[in-house]
Amino acid sequence: MVAPIRVAPSAANRALNLLRTVQYTHPPSCPCHSNPNHHHHHRTPTLADHVRRHMSTPIDPSRQKEYAFEMAASSIRFGPSATKEVGMDFANMKAKRVCVVTDKNVSQLDAMKQAIEGLSREGIEFTVFDNVRIEPKDYSIKEAIAFAKPYNPDAFLAVGGGSVIDTAKLMNLYTVYPDAEFLDFVNAPLGKGRPVDRKLKPLVAVPTTAGTGSETTGTAIFDLVSKKAKTGIAHRNLKPTLGICDPLNTRTMPSAVHAASGLDVLFHSLESWTAIPYNERTPRPTNPINRPAYQGANPISDIFSLQALRSTIQYLPRAVKDPEDFEAQSQMLLAATLAGVGFGNAGVHLCHGMSYPIASQNPGYKHAGYAVDDPVIPHGVSVAVTAPAVFRFTAASNPDRHLAAAEAFGIDISNVKRESVGEVLSEAIVKFLAELGDQPLGLKGLGFKSSDVESLVEGTIPQKRVLMLAPNLNEELEAEKAELRGLLEQSMDYS
Amino acid sequence: MVAPIRVAPSAANRALNLLRTVQYTHPPSCPCHSNPNHHHHHRTPTLADHVRRHMSTPIDPSRQKEYAFEMAASSIRFGPSATKEVGMDFANMKAKRVCVVTDKNVSQLDAMKQAIEGLSREGIEFTVFDNVRIEPKDYSIKEAIAFAKPYNPDAFLAVGGGSVIDTAKLMNLYTVYPDAEFLDFVNAPLGKGRPVDRKLKPLVAVPTTAGTGSETTGTAIFDLVSKKAKTGIAHRNLKPTLGICDPLNTRTMPSAVHAASGLDVLFHSLESWTAIPYNERTPRPTNPINRPAYQGANPISDIFSLQALRSTIQYLPRAVKDPEDFEAQSQMLLAATLAGVGFGNAGVHLCHGMSYPIASQNPGYKHAGYAVDDPVIPHGVSVAVTAPAVFRFTAASNPDRHLAAAEAFGIDISNVKRESVGEVLSEAIVKFLAELGDQPLGLKGLGFKSSDVESLVEGTIPQKRVLMLAPNLNEELEAEKAELRGLLEQSMDYS
Repeated sequence: MVAPIRVAPSAANRALNLLRTVQYTHPPSCPCHSNPNHHHHHRTPTLADHVRRHMSTPIDPSRQKEYAFEMAASSIRFGPSATKEVGMDFANMKAKRVCVVTDKNVSQLDAMKQAIEGLSREGIEFTVFDNVRIEPKDYSIKEAIAFAKPYNPDAFLAVGGGSVIDTAKLMNLYTVYPDAEFLDFVNAPLGKGRPVDRKLKPLVAVPTTAGTGSETTGTAIFDLVSKKAKTGIAHRNLKPTLGICDPLNTRTMPSAVHAASGLDVLFHSLESWTAIPYNERTPRPTNPINRPAYQGANPISDIFSLQALRSTIQYLPRAVKDPEDFEAQSQMLLAATLAGVGFGNAGVHLCHGMSYPIASQNPGYKHAGYAVDDPVIPHGVSVAVTAPAVFRFTAASNPDRHLAAAEAFGIDISNVKRESVGEVLSEAIVKFLAELGDQPLGLKGLGFKSSDVESLVEGTIPQKRVLMLAPNLNEELEAEKAELRGLLEQSMDYS
Repeated sequence: MVAPIRVAPSAANRALNLLRTVQYTHPPSCPCHSNPNHHHHHRTPTLADHVRRHMSTPIDPSRQKEYAFEMAASSIRFGPSATKEVGMDFANMKAKRVCVVTDKNVSQLDAMKQAIEGLSREGIEFTVFDNVRIEPKDYSIKEAIAFAKPYNPDAFLAVGGGSVIDTAKLMNLYTVYPDAEFLDFVNAPLGKGRPVDRKLKPLVAVPTTAGTGSETTGTAIFDLVSKKAKTGIAHRNLKPTLGICDPLNTRTMPSAVHAASGLDVLFHSLESWTAIPYNERTPRPTNPINRPAYQGANPISDIFSLQALRSTIQYLPRAVKDPEDFEAQSQMLLAATLAGVGFGNAGVHLCHGMSYPIASQNPGYKHAGYAVDDPVIPHGVSVAVTAPAVFRFTAASNPDRHLAAAEAFGIDISNVKRESVGEVLSEAIVKFLAELGDQPLGLKGLGFKSSDVESLVEGTIPQKRVLMLAPNLNEELEAEKAELRGLLEQSMDYS
């Protein structure tokens, strides 16, 4: 007779606690003015629903949903000629030995000249590693690390696109952990996913493309050759100390590079905007250090992602068509950085997840306008090619957000039905890609055949870090594979 | 005959350089979708105009305009119950002795209980300073510093409103510079404005009000009694390492505190949105370390400021009227933080500039709902009281931005003429204040008389740090005084 009495107040307390949490987190109101929210059920769940759901089953901590999000710091300096200041930045931080990281192409450009002159003017000792591989592979990263270790710099300067900045992050990481094995920090399940618990050396990043957003993120992507898979290392502590975004530095991009890197920005924005909300992610971390950088859409990432989406749709076509349109180029550099802050704190999902095997398993495609000898599917192109299928698939998870995205593409959404928003957004993306020009409208255009789909599915499955943020994707392995197969088959041909 | 030949290419180069810079910076396109821009002349200046203007006079570096902006890092964690994590944060950063800073009121609240339990659970040694003065004065700051120095903590935790967080910033500063004179770092011209060139100790800020945004900024404000002026210390390096925004912590605010602190958010947003653009600010810094945190409106601060403005207008009335409306309270905490990032990188101007003498020279006003013995004009109230006059005055500097602000207040702007936007926005602000309730609709309501205006003008003039960002304000001292006098006289009575 005593037990029920003791149980009752405890159950009541538990209900009260749930009540408090529930009222804040269900539904998460989006602070953006168009005020779409993530929930696709239309009946607002009653408190009774929540209490019932939570009270009826014992709580398994690993299944508990996230309740907080963290917006990690990114310092950005933006302005024409700001590259000149970089020597003073290193002097201000009392750096004595700087390892400058670039590639053979960028090393000839004005951005590098300005950076080197800046370091020299301040009398700072430096050395230059100019052998970064575009679309880096594990062996090119290891070569770069082997260069940095004996020099033992006290700071790094990356001047280049995403490949250069990502390589510099890893040179920094493995110089600070000289005894670590290469796979220790690589994302699980391919690597061991060890968290970065030491403070790295200062890294200043000067992007020369408007795409990657790598100057704001803690992510470094490369090709793990033995596994035939693109993967990477992601942790807040890899973030550059400062990104110097100088629109004079992106004038050198050929038109095809503008287009491909701009498509990366477009889908950084659109994928982070439509990623699962942070408070639907499991498990809830037991220590804040384990909260991933890719935490799902949240009210702050939303602001960056939606703004970057609108800017990219407005300015990318102009930047591609007219190399003299400096306003468009400048706006695209800003959009790339904003999108970087957005997806760097929210994550990307299916387009990026499938892009890695698409790029790794390239049947021999050489993108027009890329002056390289080897076959190459530029990263942005490999991302964009599945987008029409992806957003048709994800729309049901959150019609309001997909409607807002369609509106950003210039669609009059006043008469779009909620059940057709996926189709409408998909068509808007195909139209945007077609008008941009020189884009392969489907996997066929890259040389893939239907018989390649299974291998692309197998290459996508290990991309847990991004797939976990995909809305609507089945968690059961065979069902997930079937959904990915469907998306890839639908992506064969849009023309 | 040689000279002209030598001069010609140099002049040509100079013209070319100008051309490059000019094309990026005139006019600054605003990336916000409504795309207002800062310029109030309608004829786009031609290249010839610019070259003529720059070529005809020798360049005085101190008159050169800024060409870059820097968005400094602010790390924010947001979520109900996130306060519990703070012990783990200090453990993760290997802190051994934490100085906890709070006030007598907050020390009794659940926020402090959660914070203390968190530290205890991790076995971290700490001491508590609970004697922060609300609306701090130099002597209360000095007392706090005298407490911190002998304890020599390796990290700080601030739990409270803006007064607590600001006091903690200064305890941190003067513990790291133990030999500095108090006035060394205080903003010029009242203090010496010495830059903060050392790295301070980690400071985690847990706000218990939704107003100050201090958890994201490098600003600390206090009353310099001997000068009868509110002033402060502002530098990027004062920024907290992490702001933990836990909406459970703002439930304890009385309704009057909700209102007053929410008005601070409203004008952080509106002043930073309408501040002069960063690239109209002079002088251009010769070293990036001298770029002020308050740099003028820029494309990234704009995103934060406009979003915070819209959220505040939508949620503040609900948060004030219904203490059980947790969604509105939660949104206001988020808006306060977003506005903090916005104004922390752009600055505020006239309302804040005049608020300092208004608060310092309080003739005896006690705000309803504030349970204190001494007279008090809450900071947000002292800011709001001049707003209707201020935005009527600033509108001509940038009608598009003021139109966007009026629209955020719910005004149908489709038929508003550009020359009347100031009046329209001013009326919208008065209506908002009146409907919020319990606001003194003018300086008379605070007990000021017309004969006090001159003294308020004299108290405003030293607020250079914010006045320099005021659009439309005359730079010549007597003319500036006349304009401030006019604004204060117009602010006597709106009822």
